[in-house]
Amino acid sequence: MTKPSRRDLANAIRFLAIDAVEAAKSGHPGMPMGMADIAEVLWNDYLRHSPDNPKWPNRDRFILSNGHGSMLQYALLHLAGYDLSIDELKRFRQLESKTPGHPENFMTPGIETTTGPLGQGFANAVGFALAEKLLAQRYNRPGLDVVDHRTWVFMGDGCLMEGVSHEAASLAGTWGLGKLVAFWDDNGISIDGEVKGWFTDDTPARFEAYGWRVIRGVDGHDPQEIRTAIETALKHGDRPTLVCCRTTIGFGSPAKAGKESSHGAPLGKDEVEATRKALGWNHGPFEVPQEIADTWRANAKGAQHEADWNALFERYTAQHPEEAAELQRRQRSELPADFAAAADAYIAKLQADGPVVASRKASQMAIEAYAPLLPELIGGSADLAHSNLTLWKGSQPVTGGTPDANYINYGVREFGMTAIANALSMHGGFIPYDATFLVFSDYARNAVRMSALMRSHAIHVYTHDSIGLGEDGPTHQPIEHLASLRYIPNNDVWRPCDAVESAVAWKAAIQRMDGPACLVFSRQNLQHQPRSEQQVADIARGGYVLRDSNGAPEIILIATGSEVELATQAADRLGDKVRVVSMPSSNVFERQDAAYRESVLPASVRRRVAVEAGVTGFWRQYVGLDGAVIGIDSFGASAPAGELYRHFGITVDAVVEAAKAL
Amino acid sequence: MTKPSRRDLANAIRFLAIDAVEAAKSGHPGMPMGMADIAEVLWNDYLRHSPDNPKWPNRDRFILSNGHGSMLQYALLHLAGYDLSIDELKRFRQLESKTPGHPENFMTPGIETTTGPLGQGFANAVGFALAEKLLAQRYNRPGLDVVDHRTWVFMGDGCLMEGVSHEAASLAGTWGLGKLVAFWDDNGISIDGEVKGWFTDDTPARFEAYGWRVIRGVDGHDPQEIRTAIETALKHGDRPTLVCCRTTIGFGSPAKAGKESSHGAPLGKDEVEATRKALGWNHGPFEVPQEIADTWRANAKGAQHEADWNALFERYTAQHPEEAAELQRRQRSELPADFAAAADAYIAKLQADGPVVASRKASQMAIEAYAPLLPELIGGSADLAHSNLTLWKGSQPVTGGTPDANYINYGVREFGMTAIANALSMHGGFIPYDATFLVFSDYARNAVRMSALMRSHAIHVYTHDSIGLGEDGPTHQPIEHLASLRYIPNNDVWRPCDAVESAVAWKAAIQRMDGPACLVFSRQNLQHQPRSEQQVADIARGGYVLRDSNGAPEIILIATGSEVELATQAADRLGDKVRVVSMPSSNVFERQDAAYRESVLPASVRRRVAVEAGVTGFWRQYVGLDGAVIGIDSFGASAPAGELYRHFGITVDAVVEAAKAL
Repeated sequence: MTKPSRRDLANAIRFLAIDAVEAAKSGHPGMPMGMADIAEVLWNDYLRHSPDNPKWPNRDRFILSNGHGSMLQYALLHLAGYDLSIDELKRFRQLESKTPGHPENFMTPGIETTTGPLGQGFANAVGFALAEKLLAQRYNRPGLDVVDHRTWVFMGDGCLMEGVSHEAASLAGTWGLGKLVAFWDDNGISIDGEVKGWFTDDTPARFEAYGWRVIRGVDGHDPQEIRTAIETALKHGDRPTLVCCRTTIGFGSPAKAGKESSHGAPLGKDEVEATRKALGWNHGPFEVPQEIADTWRANAKGAQHEADWNALFERYTAQHPEEAAELQRRQRSELPADFAAAADAYIAKLQADGPVVASRKASQMAIEAYAPLLPELIGGSADLAHSNLTLWKGSQPVTGGTPDANYINYGVREFGMTAIANALSMHGGFIPYDATFLVFSDYARNAVRMSALMRSHAIHVYTHDSIGLGEDGPTHQPIEHLASLRYIPNNDVWRPCDAVESAVAWKAAIQRMDGPACLVFSRQNLQHQPRSEQQVADIARGGYVLRDSNGAPEIILIATGSEVELATQAADRLGDKVRVVSMPSSNVFERQDAAYRESVLPASVRRRVAVEAGVTGFWRQYVGLDGAVIGIDSFGASAPAGELYRHFGITVDAVVEAAKAL
Repeated sequence: MTKPSRRDLANAIRFLAIDAVEAAKSGHPGMPMGMADIAEVLWNDYLRHSPDNPKWPNRDRFILSNGHGSMLQYALLHLAGYDLSIDELKRFRQLESKTPGHPENFMTPGIETTTGPLGQGFANAVGFALAEKLLAQRYNRPGLDVVDHRTWVFMGDGCLMEGVSHEAASLAGTWGLGKLVAFWDDNGISIDGEVKGWFTDDTPARFEAYGWRVIRGVDGHDPQEIRTAIETALKHGDRPTLVCCRTTIGFGSPAKAGKESSHGAPLGKDEVEATRKALGWNHGPFEVPQEIADTWRANAKGAQHEADWNALFERYTAQHPEEAAELQRRQRSELPADFAAAADAYIAKLQADGPVVASRKASQMAIEAYAPLLPELIGGSADLAHSNLTLWKGSQPVTGGTPDANYINYGVREFGMTAIANALSMHGGFIPYDATFLVFSDYARNAVRMSALMRSHAIHVYTHDSIGLGEDGPTHQPIEHLASLRYIPNNDVWRPCDAVESAVAWKAAIQRMDGPACLVFSRQNLQHQPRSEQQVADIARGGYVLRDSNGAPEIILIATGSEVELATQAADRLGDKVRVVSMPSSNVFERQDAAYRESVLPASVRRRVAVEAGVTGFWRQYVGLDGAVIGIDSFGASAPAGELYRHFGITVDAVVEAAKAL
């Protein structure tokens, strides 16, 4: 039995990808065929991981930003010895297989993040590398580098065309993420054909302009050149590295190599046979010869890496028990034992004190109250720190290099910010919060969706939540955003009505372990609402009776955020048969049991008015065809906030009249 | 009376901005104070425009991408002699003034596009410059350059940090937009403070990497240096130019110049006085000395520009009457007289022929039918031409340089694409359509919103509109997108159920002059639906009775797109008391009069089921608390489309059962 050549090892990837796409009758063979040689060298010679323990905290992170090439990653995971059987590869792109069309972190062991929407995997990689750097900065001690791993990312032309690549690459350069290595699959082809008609950037020069080290002109099919490039990348610690790899998409296919036809469809039976011949791969579909499989398997090597690290961590624990315990707690995504009680005490005190503040200020107060307990909390804003009020007394910028760095000045980069925040969460050890104006959640929209899809623990803080923003006008005034964010599956949107609800929303967001939260706050001051202890407890259910009627309600007013005080004032005028429901999070309310929901919104009460400074259609699901909604379905305007509320008819009068008209 | 100095002229801008912000008690003085000298040189020495005719087709376009500095532009418009009185400046940021917080194209004469969301104005500028180039290419004749103007854009650090700047700059370089000149306000300050903590790009090198000419190190307060830079930019025609201007934000304010405190708030009374002193401006608030006002006024010069052009255009008309007529028709945004009838004939034929195709294919057929009549139609896709089916027989790439170029390969740049399409429309002469997968409308989200806000005539084609996309999985399957897009004010979303509705949707989008349309199409084949002539006509009303009950309806089934055939099949099984309503555009349906809406959805019929492969909450506004909605509120999954529909329970059975259970 001869030792397999590197090309043999790479061909195992190629044919697993080819065969899986063929079996699925859909998928993307071109990229795995093109990047197989790079992946082979990286995984066999450099990647430090432990296939038997995909969650080993000190593993290198490998990110496939060009996620349509998912079969590359599945082949790698299978070959390296992860719990991903050949049968799963045969079920590529089938319902509930571990091998979906794009890599999903929640489906497959060894997948760090969900990729597919181009450019975001690259931005995630920047976040992963930042997470490592910050944890290392905080926890490592001389001779005890318990946090010491690299982030490797594959990306294609598509990722580089996307704007988010600019935002993320710029930040990676500013932050000097020396352990980040990106491989550019420079194959000159995108879906529409040869990229020279629409992608003529000098990409190496562009990345040098961001402060990256750029290794140009690597032959992506020559293992020695790939090794040399990686060795160079490993030598220097102060800058991220871009390795520019010239490759051939669909490498090995006589008819389709170098052509867009290999990108997103099966090669076809005859072409598969021709490719087998061309590459000298004399094995049946899904067959990997034993000696090739044996050479690939990384379980033993991975176990050794892990054992070495465990020994190191034991020494670390002996010398720094508190730091070790804290780091492990963070890596397990456990909150401090005293967090919930401390938060409840803070909330109770707020209810008693009754401060009248803007909810963005209430948000800052909540951060101030909770953050000292949570070293894992890492904040930031897209250049609106003093408007979003995301800084607290303990904030330390990540560019300062201090061990307790916990605040990111993202610059005006909402999309990159959000993708990086997702990665800080997926890496482990962090609960990130990011921030911008609510209207500019649009810029980050798909990354917010990805937060929810990949079940990240990112907290998105959105202030200036309505026409209450005032003079900046319609470009800056959200209208459809609340509804639109609430409709993202697995996304919890909170729009609190006062400081107490704001503190509860923050607590809920911090405690939520399987998805993100959008915390939406006002620019303007909001009244404090009186509540019983039970009512304070019920805020966490997303919707609750804030003020009840005398006896059975005849009318129900439903409101959120700044409009709750309109509803309570309207109730004052409508008499004592009116119930006011505060609904800070319809998403959370919908998860309550039917009995609770019925207790808040009895099906028999049809005289219902909802009021929210946003689109009215959303609230029809709560008021029905017989109810009324006070809101705004046009764009806003530039004027002082109070005038706008009157101009657009979001007033106590309007609520009263609507209720009377029912 | 001495001739005013250039600094005097610039100070007129500064103090109009300072005074207006002071009067409004909000706004952004820092940028106008910093860019006043650049603006003064550009407007007085180079900008070709006609203040008395802001719509003169051959005017230079001036775009303020850093739109928060709106008072710079209002001051310029006022001083140059546009219909923008000093009283309007005094009403800065007040309700229904012509001087809103950010420049709005529909509020103020001389404003070309709506800016404020950073980076998009710059991307718009790229679109404006492309529009000029393409019109020139098509209509100019030797010695008769009837299309010949420049695009000038101001932008700040924030614009350059945004990802969309990357997408747009890259395309501008590829397209060689030699008449585009961008001025970078390099003041080293953004809202959070000195940008060196979060913006360390070598921006000149970055733009050179895109193929731009870069003029470095211009003193943005030295008129001669600014002139020299502009002269250099004018000399070369083959590349866009970036002029890097070192400026001081809040220039002239003793206490706030060079500081973020001058960015977004009034200087304050005392500091205004100190600034008056420092700059030697001895005039009261809103006072512009006569000699300065006279020097600024550009009406006569503008009228001369226009007269010269009119003479040229007369010669052109004499020699090329057909081209002249077509160009003028396009500039007036008038459709060809025969368009409506031709479209109706095509639609009638489709209804008779009954093709069973995917609606994305039906979309392509509609383009094929309409585009030969519409030289103003300019297509494109974000690297998905063969999936979106946006190419037709007459498509010619803009990079080809042919006079009939009408197709843009945008690359993988959804946001830049959409912002550029908006500008193609705002420039005049074009009806742009762009395209991507529906799920990736997220990447373009704020530009879609801007389409609607600025009332652009952009048509956004979104294919692969549901879990029907299949194997690519949840990252590629829209769930919340239909609802989210429908909630954008002034945005018409269409989701047709067959080829006939697809053709009607395209016709409506082309005929709509005051806002965009999102045309949403399926990947998979859709059944043809039988219709009477009246029903065919009613499609344009957004919702209509596709199949009626025998007598008064007892049950109404409402559906869109691919789910309409589920509804009709369910109706077959539910008996003859069932009405099926097809609702291709709820936005358009909502604009119909109450009587029509009642005729389609009688208030008395409460047994209603809606079915759409998207979030269910949206449809509650049509089915009420007593109805049912069949849809999907979770993320999708990776599997063949048919299996997904069964897995998520979007089936004929589900509709039948829901209807029976009511």
